[in-house]
Amino acid sequence: MSNVVTPDLNRGERIGLDEAILCDSKSNADLVHILDGAIEDDHSLLLTRLSEVSLERFPVNIREKIDYDPDSKTGFLGPLRALSDTALVAIVTAGTSDNHVAREASRTLRHAGEASVSFDDLGVAGLWRILEKQSELRTYPVVIVVAGMDGALFGVIGGLVPGTIIAVPTSVGYGAARDGETALAVALANCAPGIVTVNIDNGYGAACAALRILRQMRQN
Amino acid sequence: MSNVVTPDLNRGERIGLDEAILCDSKSNADLVHILDGAIEDDHSLLLTRLSEVSLERFPVNIREKIDYDPDSKTGFLGPLRALSDTALVAIVTAGTSDNHVAREASRTLRHAGEASVSFDDLGVAGLWRILEKQSELRTYPVVIVVAGMDGALFGVIGGLVPGTIIAVPTSVGYGAARDGETALAVALANCAPGIVTVNIDNGYGAACAALRILRQMRQN
Amino acid sequence: MSNVVTPDLNRGERIGLDEAILCDSKSNADLVHILDGAIEDDHSLLLTRLSEVSLERFPVNIREKIDYDPDSKTGFLGPLRALSDTALVAIVTAGTSDNHVAREASRTLRHAGEASVSFDDLGVAGLWRILEKQSELRTYPVVIVVAGMDGALFGVIGGLVPGTIIAVPTSVGYGAARDGETALAVALANCAPGIVTVNIDNGYGAACAALRILRQMRQN
Amino acid sequence: MSNVVTPDLNRGERIGLDEAILCDSKSNADLVHILDGAIEDDHSLLLTRLSEVSLERFPVNIREKIDYDPDSKTGFLGPLRALSDTALVAIVTAGTSDNHVAREASRTLRHAGEASVSFDDLGVAGLWRILEKQSELRTYPVVIVVAGMDGALFGVIGGLVPGTIIAVPTSVGYGAARDGETALAVALANCAPGIVTVNIDNGYGAACAALRILRQMRQN
Amino acid sequence: MSNVVTPDLNRGERIGLDEAILCDSKSNADLVHILDGAIEDDHSLLLTRLSEVSLERFPVNIREKIDYDPDSKTGFLGPLRALSDTALVAIVTAGTSDNHVAREASRTLRHAGEASVSFDDLGVAGLWRILEKQSELRTYPVVIVVAGMDGALFGVIGGLVPGTIIAVPTSVGYGAARDGETALAVALANCAPGIVTVNIDNGYGAACAALRILRQMRQN
Amino acid sequence: MSNVVTPDLNRGERIGLDEAILCDSKSNADLVHILDGAIEDDHSLLLTRLSEVSLERFPVNIREKIDYDPDSKTGFLGPLRALSDTALVAIVTAGTSDNHVAREASRTLRHAGEASVSFDDLGVAGLWRILEKQSELRTYPVVIVVAGMDGALFGVIGGLVPGTIIAVPTSVGYGAARDGETALAVALANCAPGIVTVNIDNGYGAACAALRILRQMRQN
Amino acid sequence: MSNVVTPDLNRGERIGLDEAILCDSKSNADLVHILDGAIEDDHSLLLTRLSEVSLERFPVNIREKIDYDPDSKTGFLGPLRALSDTALVAIVTAGTSDNHVAREASRTLRHAGEASVSFDDLGVAGLWRILEKQSELRTYPVVIVVAGMDGALFGVIGGLVPGTIIAVPTSVGYGAARDGETALAVALANCAPGIVTVNIDNGYGAACAALRILRQMRQN
Amino acid sequence: MSNVVTPDLNRGERIGLDEAILCDSKSNADLVHILDGAIEDDHSLLLTRLSEVSLERFPVNIREKIDYDPDSKTGFLGPLRALSDTALVAIVTAGTSDNHVAREASRTLRHAGEASVSFDDLGVAGLWRILEKQSELRTYPVVIVVAGMDGALFGVIGGLVPGTIIAVPTSVGYGAARDGETALAVALANCAPGIVTVNIDNGYGAACAALRILRQMRQN
Repeated sequence: MSNVVTPDLNRGERIGLDEAILCDSKSNADLVHILDGAIEDDHSLLLTRLSEVSLERFPVNIREKIDYDPDSKTGFLGPLRALSDTALVAIVTAGTSDNHVAREASRTLRHAGEASVSFDDLGVAGLWRILEKQSELRTYPVVIVVAGMDGALFGVIGGLVPGTIIAVPTSVGYGAARDGETALAVALANCAPGIVTVNIDNGYGAACAALRILRQMRQN
Repeated sequence: MSNVVTPDLNRGERIGLDEAILCDSKSNADLVHILDGAIEDDHSLLLTRLSEVSLERFPVNIREKIDYDPDSKTGFLGPLRALSDTALVAIVTAGTSDNHVAREASRTLRHAGEASVSFDDLGVAGLWRILEKQSELRTYPVVIVVAGMDGALFGVIGGLVPGTIIAVPTSVGYGAARDGETALAVALANCAPGIVTVNIDNGYGAACAALRILRQMRQN
Repeated sequence: MSNVVTPDLNRGERIGLDEAILCDSKSNADLVHILDGAIEDDHSLLLTRLSEVSLERFPVNIREKIDYDPDSKTGFLGPLRALSDTALVAIVTAGTSDNHVAREASRTLRHAGEASVSFDDLGVAGLWRILEKQSELRTYPVVIVVAGMDGALFGVIGGLVPGTIIAVPTSVGYGAARDGETALAVALANCAPGIVTVNIDNGYGAACAALRILRQMRQN
Repeated sequence: MSNVVTPDLNRGERIGLDEAILCDSKSNADLVHILDGAIEDDHSLLLTRLSEVSLERFPVNIREKIDYDPDSKTGFLGPLRALSDTALVAIVTAGTSDNHVAREASRTLRHAGEASVSFDDLGVAGLWRILEKQSELRTYPVVIVVAGMDGALFGVIGGLVPGTIIAVPTSVGYGAARDGETALAVALANCAPGIVTVNIDNGYGAACAALRILRQMRQN
Repeated sequence: MSNVVTPDLNRGERIGLDEAILCDSKSNADLVHILDGAIEDDHSLLLTRLSEVSLERFPVNIREKIDYDPDSKTGFLGPLRALSDTALVAIVTAGTSDNHVAREASRTLRHAGEASVSFDDLGVAGLWRILEKQSELRTYPVVIVVAGMDGALFGVIGGLVPGTIIAVPTSVGYGAARDGETALAVALANCAPGIVTVNIDNGYGAACAALRILRQMRQN
Repeated sequence: MSNVVTPDLNRGERIGLDEAILCDSKSNADLVHILDGAIEDDHSLLLTRLSEVSLERFPVNIREKIDYDPDSKTGFLGPLRALSDTALVAIVTAGTSDNHVAREASRTLRHAGEASVSFDDLGVAGLWRILEKQSELRTYPVVIVVAGMDGALFGVIGGLVPGTIIAVPTSVGYGAARDGETALAVALANCAPGIVTVNIDNGYGAACAALRILRQMRQN
Repeated sequence: MSNVVTPDLNRGERIGLDEAILCDSKSNADLVHILDGAIEDDHSLLLTRLSEVSLERFPVNIREKIDYDPDSKTGFLGPLRALSDTALVAIVTAGTSDNHVAREASRTLRHAGEASVSFDDLGVAGLWRILEKQSELRTYPVVIVVAGMDGALFGVIGGLVPGTIIAVPTSVGYGAARDGETALAVALANCAPGIVTVNIDNGYGAACAALRILRQMRQN
Repeated sequence: MSNVVTPDLNRGERIGLDEAILCDSKSNADLVHILDGAIEDDHSLLLTRLSEVSLERFPVNIREKIDYDPDSKTGFLGPLRALSDTALVAIVTAGTSDNHVAREASRTLRHAGEASVSFDDLGVAGLWRILEKQSELRTYPVVIVVAGMDGALFGVIGGLVPGTIIAVPTSVGYGAARDGETALAVALANCAPGIVTVNIDNGYGAACAALRILRQMRQN
C-alpha cells in the first residue's frame, strides 16, 4: 500500500515552477525510479546536487539523456525551454570559490528559459571592482549576490543597486565563517534595506525566487 | 571634528527607498537632532521601533508632527505620498500575535505610497482558513507571510501561490521557538521552492523588499 | 571483575518492550558477544543502525541468522512474533529521503508484532497529496509523521487528524536544516496542539512510543 | 478587509481538542475581543499563560466569568465538562519548582473532563521516593513526567513503567540547565525506549497529547 | 585572612597600560573600597561601565572627584596625563547607535594621553560617505572601526586603508544580529587581510590594543 | 492525593550531605511550608539563592531564625555544626566580582562544619600575585578556583598545585564571556591535567564536591 | 632558535602527575621525536588517543617498546610502577559503547600504579542493575561514572553513593545527544549534590582527578 | 560575459599587503588559471591551505616553480623579497600541535620579507617555561600567540609583555574545545587588556596584522 514517490505534477500550473529533484539525500534506486518515470512521460526535469559518483551509478540509457554540469552538480533531463532574449537577472559572486553555487542559480534559470549574466570575483576587499560594475548592475531588476565568509558584498550591492537583491550565503570559509552561518546572519541583519535571503549554498532557491518575480513582471 | 549624523541623502534616488530611522538603539538626543533636521529640511521620514515611552520624551513640537501607530511602533513625519490605487501586496499572518509585525510592513508600504491587503490569523492548524483564501491570494504579485513558532505557514502558502513569497519569522512562542530562530530556519530550509526571508520581526525589511519588486514592475 | 554486558532481561515484562541493540557505537567484538548470547538463549533481538559493513564482519553463522533490511539498517534475530490482523499505526513521510527512517519504525513495529501502513512522499509543498489522504489518516489511532527540512508536515497533519501524532524529525536537508535540529524545533514549537516528538532520525523510538500506546489500547 | 481573529471553530470535531487561547503574546485588546466573542456565543474556552496583571486589565464583567488559577496561570471561561470517574493520567514532578507546569497539565485535562493524579517531588537524587510509588505508577496508561535541570526522572520512570511517558522539560535551573534545553535534550536522547516529549514548560501540550490517546482508548 | 582586593600595582611598568576598573560586576562596597584606596595613594584610575545609578550611590567626596561621561559610562579619577599633540588613532562608526562604544575607546585613549579623531555614521549602505573620507583615513597608523548588525564596515575599511584595523563589533541590532555575535564573526571571517578584533562592545579593549601599538611606535 | 514536598530525609546518612534548599525557583508558599516543617522537626537547613526580597516576604518568626548572608544569598536555619580545627579547603578567586560565588562555597562548607581559607583577586593578568601564594596553596588537599571571563586561573593553578582543583566558572563578563559558558569550556578543555568542574556560579556544588572528598579523607 | 618540544620535566614533583602525550593532534615526526627522547632518558610515558594507524607508522624499535591497548587507544612506554594492593576507584559505565572511555581511565590509573574496579553496562533504563551494586559502590572513595546520551547515570549514582563522583560524559548517541554535549550538561546541571565533571570522552582527565584525590588520601 | 577571476592588482599599493591565494575552497582548474596568470606576469604569490594532494594535481611546470612547505601547507611562487635584518615578531605556541598554524604565520611574514622568531611548546600547565622566556619576549613589538584548548597562554603572555599581542586560537582539542571556539572566546573575553584576535587557525591573518603594524613602525 506504500507508494514510494508521489510526484507533485501540477506544481508548474500552480506556482509557475517545475518540480526539481534534490538528488543527494535520495537512494540510487529512488532516483532511477523517478528518472525512469520522467523519461516515460516525456517530463522535463532539473536535477540538483547530483554528484558525479551518483551519475556514474545510473544505467547508461538514463545517464546519456542527462545534460550534466559537474561544476554546479546540476543535470537537465528532457527537452529544454527556449531561452529568453533579454537577461533580467545578474548573478554576482564575491570570490571564485562561490562560483559553483552561482552556477546552480544560472543553470536553474536556464532550465526555466531565463537568461542571466555573471559578474564574478567582485569581493569587497577590492572595492574598485564593484564600483566599476555599479552602473551596469543597476540595470537589472533582479540581482543574485553569492558570497561566503563575511558576506560584506550583500550590503555593499544592496546600497548601490535598486533591483531586488537575493542573497545566497555560501559555506566558503573556516572557523568563525561557521559553514556559511555567518554570511547568512549578515544577509539577515543587514543595514541595506530590503535584502532578502535564501538558505546557505542554495543557488537553486535564489533562482526560483527570481523566477517568481520574473513571471509576475513578464505577465504585466 | 566629529559629525554625529551623516544622513544618506540621495538613497531614494540611488535605490528607490527613502531613509528610515530605526529608533530603539539611538539616544533621545540623537533622535531629536535627526528629527529637527528633517523638519527643517521638510524631509519626510519613516520612524520604526519607536516606543511610546521614547515618543513621550520628544519635545511637544516634534511629537505633534508625528503620525504615530502604537501597534506597529511606527511614526510618519512630514507629508505622505499619494496612495496607489491598486494593492499589489498581500500580508498574511499566522496568528493575532503576529499582527504588530505585519502592521510594521503595511505602514512601511503606506509611507512609500503602496496599498496592501491583510489576511489575518490563517494558521496552519486550521487549514481550511488558508484554503478558503487560496484563490484570492494567488492574485497578488507579492505575498508577505508573517509567522512565528513552527512557521508552517511559509511553506503552505509557498506551495499554493505563484507570487513572490517574503517570509517574516516572528519571535512569538517560547522554548524551542527560540525567539524566532526556529521560524527563521523553517523559512530558509523550506521544501516549497523560491521562498525568501528577512530578519526576525523585520516587517520593515519585508516591505522594502516588496518595494524593490514593485518599483521594477511599475517601471516596466 | 568486569562484566562487559549486563542485559536488561526482564525489560519486556516491566515495560512491554523487548531489548533492542543499537549497533553503531558498539565494537564488533561486543556485538558478536551479545548476539552469541542471544542465539544460545533463543532470545529474539531487534538490531538497529547495523551497517552492511558491520554485518559483513560478523561470523557467517551469526550473519545468516539475521533477517537484514539494508534500507532501514535493521536486523531481526530469532523467531518473530505473529503479526496483528489490523494495522493501528499509519507512517507518513514528507519525501522519499525520509523513507529509511520511516522503515526503521515499521520494522520495529513488525518485530513487536504490529502491522502498520505507509503513506509516502506527502510533502506540504504539494498540499493536495495530504488532503486526498486526510480521511483515511483520520482512522488510525496513532500516526507517525517523518519529515526533515522545514517539518511543516507535523503541524498540517496535527491539525487534520485526531489520533496521536508522533513526530520524527529527520536529518534530511542542508544549511539551516541543521542536521534535523530545525525539524525537531518545529515539532516542539508547533501550533497544532498535542504533537509529541522523539529524537532526530529515531524511527525506532517512535515505534516504541506507538507500542506503549497500543499495548494499553489492546489491554482495555 | 482585515479580520483580526479567525477562530478555528470546528477544531473540536476535527481533532477532538477544543481551541485554547495562549494569552501572553496577545494584546489586551485582542484578548478582550476574543473573550467577548466566546461569551456571546456561549463558547467554553481554556486560557493559558494568562498573567495576573493581564487578568486585572480585563473589564470586570469578563474577569468575574473566569475561573482563574494563579499557580498555573490558566483560566476557564464558560461551563465545564463533567469530570471522568477514573483518572487515567498520572502527573509526576521532580521538584516543587516544576509544580506550576504540572498544574497547567492537570488544569488542561480538567477542562477537557479528564481527572488526573499528581505525584510531586519525586526527584532522582532521592531514588527511594520513586521506587516507593513504582507499582502505583505502573497502573496508569499515561504518565506525564515534569522535570528540569538534569531531567533524569524521564529515563528512570521510562525504564520502570509500561504506560505512555510524556516528558515535559522545564526551564528550572541555571547555567548548564540552559533554560530547559538540557532537560529537553535528555528527554530526546534517552536510553529508556519510547519516551516522547513536548516543548519546554508546555504542560498544556502534554495534556493535549494525553487527550489524543485517551480519546482513542475510550472510543475502543 | 581574606584580602578582598589585590591591586596589580606595577602593571603600568610591566605592560605599559594602567589598571582600569570594570565597574558593572562589582558591588558598591568593593568599588568604594578601591576608589578610597586610589584617592589615598594619589593613584590615577580609569573607570569603565560605570552606570549613573552606581555613580549616584558613591559618597559625595568620591563622586565629586570623578570626571564622568554618561555617554560612554566612563570616569576619570585623579590627575590626567598631558594630551599628545598628534592624533594617531581614527575611530570610525557605522551608525549613531555605535557612538557610545566609540566614545569608550576615545576616553580610554584620552586617559592614557593619546588624542584621537572620530568619523561617525559612515555605514556601508551609503558607500559614498566612506569613499569621501578614504584618503584622510589612510593617514592614520591605527583605525578603530566600530560596527554592529552586519559589520560590513570592517571589510570595506580593511580593503581601503593600510593602517592597523581594530574591529569593535557592537551589540546593536536584533534577531540575526544576535547581540553582536554576527558582527564579531564578520570581523573574524573577513576577506580583507589582517583585521584584528576585540570583544563585543569592548571600546576599552580596542583602545588598549591601540596603546600597545602606539607605545612601540613612539619608542622607535 | 498530591504531596507538594517529599523531603529526602536520609540523604545525610546516604551520601554524607544534608539537604539544602535552592530557593530562587520555588514559590514563597512552598518555601514557607518547607521552613515551617524544618523548624518543627528541629531540622538544620542550608538555604541557597535566597534573595533579600524573598527573605523579607517570610513571616517574621521564620525570618528571625535565619542567619542570612546577603553577599552569598545563603541562609542557615537551625543549630550549626562545630567548625573543624584545620582548614583543608582553599578558595581562590580571579577578581572581586567572583567573591559572592566563592562565598556561597565557604558558607556551604561552614554549614557542614568545615573551615576554609580565601585567596581573593589573584587574576592571571597580574601573575606575580599567584606566584607569591603558590607554596601556600600547595598545602591544601582541595583548592576551589572561582573565575569568570577567560577562566585562565583554572589552568595556572592546576599546573602549580597538587591538590584536587575544583573549578567554578562564573557568569562575570560580557559578549564572548557568554554568561560563563566560556569559563566553563575552559575548565573542561584544560591543558592542566585532572581539573574537575561544576556548573556556572555553583559555589554550593563545589563545596559539596569538596565535602565528599574531605569525608573520605577524615574517615581514613 | 625554535625548540619544537619543551617537556614539562618536573611536573610529577610539582603536581603529582607524570606528563602524558595526547597523540592525535601531533604529527608523526613530532611524536617520534618525543618518544625517542623518552627512550633515551629512560623516561616512562603514557600515550593517549594513539590510533593503530599512527602506531603502525612508528619505527619498529619504538613500536615494540609500547604496551598498546587498542580498545582505549593508550600505550605505555617504559617501566611501569608497582600496582597498589587495594583498588580505591570504581569505574561505572552506562552501556558497552562507553567502555573504551572507561578503559582510558583504568589504563591511566594503572600507569600511575593505582588499581581500579569496573562495573559495566549499568544503564538507568534497567534500574535493578544499579540497585544490585549499590552497597558495593558505596565502599569506594572515588567513583568514575562514564555515560553518554541522557547521562542519567550520573545523578542516580550521585544520589546513592557518598564517595567523590567524577562524571565522564561520552559522545555516544545521535541527534539531540549532540556528540556528548547533552550528557555533559546533565553532569553540570545535576540535582544530586557535589558531582564534578571532566571534558567529553576524557577518561584520562577523570583518572588524573582521581589521582589528585588518592595522593592526598594516601599521604594523610 | 563572465570573468572567472578578477585579481585585486593594486592591493599592495593600497594597503601594503600583496594578494594571497586561499587554495582549499577553489577548484583545481581555477587555481591553475590563477597560477598561470601569475607566472606569465612574473607576479609573486603566497599560496595558503594548499594540500599536498592539490599540489600533486598541478601541471609539473607549475608545481616545480612552487617552494612548498607541507607543515604549514603554504607555497611561494615567484621571486622572494629580501629578508629584514632584525626580527620584530615573536611567535609563541602552547603545544607542538599548534606548530603548523604558527608556521603559516612565519611563512607569511617571510614572504613579505619580515623575519620572526619562534618560541614553541610554552604551555601554561608548565608555567616555568614561560617565565624563563619572559624578558626575551618583552623585547618584541609584536607577539603572535598560538594556542588551542583552554587558550590560557593568551592572557598569561598578555599580562607579562608590553608589545602587541595577536592571539591565534587553534582547533586543537576535542569536546568542550569545540574546534577552537573556546580558545577564540578566551582571546576575546580576556582579563589581560588590549589583546586582539584573528579567526581560528588563521596564522596568515595574524601575520598580515603584524605586517600592518610593522609597515607603520618602519615608515616612522
